[in-house]
Amino acid sequence: MTHTGDVIQYRVFPTEAEQGFNRAIRRIVTAVREILRAADLPPGELAAVGIGCAGPVNPRTGEINNPYTLSGWNHCNIVEPLERELGVPVCLENDADAAALGEFYFGAGQGAESMVMLTFGTGIGGAAVLRGQLYRGVAGEHPEIGHVTVAAEGAACYCGRTGCLESIASGTALAAAGKKFGFGSAAEVFAAAASGQPEAARVLQTARAAVDAAIWTLVHTFLPARIVLGGGMVEAHPGFFLEPARAAIARATQIPRDYITVAIAQLGNRAGLAGAARWAMLRAQPEQKHHSEVP
Amino acid sequence: MTHTGDVIQYRVFPTEAEQGFNRAIRRIVTAVREILRAADLPPGELAAVGIGCAGPVNPRTGEINNPYTLSGWNHCNIVEPLERELGVPVCLENDADAAALGEFYFGAGQGAESMVMLTFGTGIGGAAVLRGQLYRGVAGEHPEIGHVTVAAEGAACYCGRTGCLESIASGTALAAAGKKFGFGSAAEVFAAAASGQPEAARVLQTARAAVDAAIWTLVHTFLPARIVLGGGMVEAHPGFFLEPARAAIARATQIPRDYITVAIAQLGNRAGLAGAARWAMLRAQPEQKHHSEVP
Repeated sequence: MTHTGDVIQYRVFPTEAEQGFNRAIRRIVTAVREILRAADLPPGELAAVGIGCAGPVNPRTGEINNPYTLSGWNHCNIVEPLERELGVPVCLENDADAAALGEFYFGAGQGAESMVMLTFGTGIGGAAVLRGQLYRGVAGEHPEIGHVTVAAEGAACYCGRTGCLESIASGTALAAAGKKFGFGSAAEVFAAAASGQPEAARVLQTARAAVDAAIWTLVHTFLPARIVLGGGMVEAHPGFFLEPARAAIARATQIPRDYITVAIAQLGNRAGLAGAARWAMLRAQPEQKHHSEVP
Repeated sequence: MTHTGDVIQYRVFPTEAEQGFNRAIRRIVTAVREILRAADLPPGELAAVGIGCAGPVNPRTGEINNPYTLSGWNHCNIVEPLERELGVPVCLENDADAAALGEFYFGAGQGAESMVMLTFGTGIGGAAVLRGQLYRGVAGEHPEIGHVTVAAEGAACYCGRTGCLESIASGTALAAAGKKFGFGSAAEVFAAAASGQPEAARVLQTARAAVDAAIWTLVHTFLPARIVLGGGMVEAHPGFFLEPARAAIARATQIPRDYITVAIAQLGNRAGLAGAARWAMLRAQPEQKHHSEVP
């Protein structure tokens, strides 16, 4: 990707985590060199490498520590070997954070002074981008916006709470709620509700109220200029998510609601790619600042 | 107050808003000059003036716009005439925001890299201090942390939502809930619950769950190093608020909970004084930085 966001070349290949970490590093290095050759660019034209990786990852140390989908890669430092091999700065981010940066710089967040993104899929991820940077909390960790409280009661979530957003409005939660009425997936719940099936409609009504409650909380805490909604469920049913988000903001009397807009994510699964690349370039070349406070 | 937070002199006098804005300005100027004389300081020793005022106020324009308690002062600029008369920078903040800055610099927030404060009184106020500065959202406005969602249902709040923290756990809310059982105030509800009255205990149990839910949301959004609890209700019943706050954090599995501490506010109603003064000095003399990013 260029500094202005144009994707010159890309390659998609499976991670093959089970083949080991060192082999993955070699395959990444080979792919980067192939891309440069295919684009007819000398190696010196490579400015930086950005990595958006399924978390948990540690952007400060460069370590991946995901026992779920990258089994055997625990505490593997992906930044050091790539910097050594490629001779440029390498930047590691959680994939959801990278996607939020991508939407902020090149997608639905463009032009907003601040943005909160919620991604509705199997789970619910989220990130806040303030002053051109990912919001980080204590110990440099990212918030877990998908787990804000939306109800006093509800299903227990692995996060430690009942009634969080993810436990009510994620794909997994909708499938679990629908299973009681014989539906096999979240998609089946949406389809049944569309044809008037009352139990499916009730399941969706609960999810809709949870989205309303979560957006309410996000505009009363981060108070961002833009809310971006993304993920597979939002791509399939944008209106279902947009409507309660906008309704929540329209009701709020204590915040400057007219300055807050809601938008659907534009970049799909390219958002993480664009965000990680852009962030790596900004860190490598501080003069390419988007906002005045990007490091 | 000195740069290090020592209060040399202070005066307390009623606002007498009904006497008009210009008269209030003259009384403030007179009080400042009296303070300097009483402390044996030449006028040149005055570095800045900080104002913590009941909101809504606009810290950027210097305007007060509070039709409730400062009737007739609508859109009155308090910064300009004081700067003209006193010849030093004057800084206006919302009183709750000023109190949060005071606790951050001189009270329960000292030493923390970031802080969220919740103030439980008639209503519930809140502020976040990040990197030594008050968190501001879109249009430069402050968040309304007292109105985060804590339940799907509940009493309707003037904020536009049912089930927000303030509508369940504020002094006003406790008094309203207690009234149904014959209690005359929030204090009476606390007293009855302490002597085992079951309805009073149930009212408090609902409020306790609301505090738990709100703290949960704040640590999953702002993810601060410290939560500070203040206000009249917390002064009277610190354990009632501390316990659910700590319990919420102890249950959380997705955030670095061991880095988050909860503390009771230390400065009482002096917090706003200290915070407004400190903030005004920091803005007037940028070399007196507490953190690297204070302007």
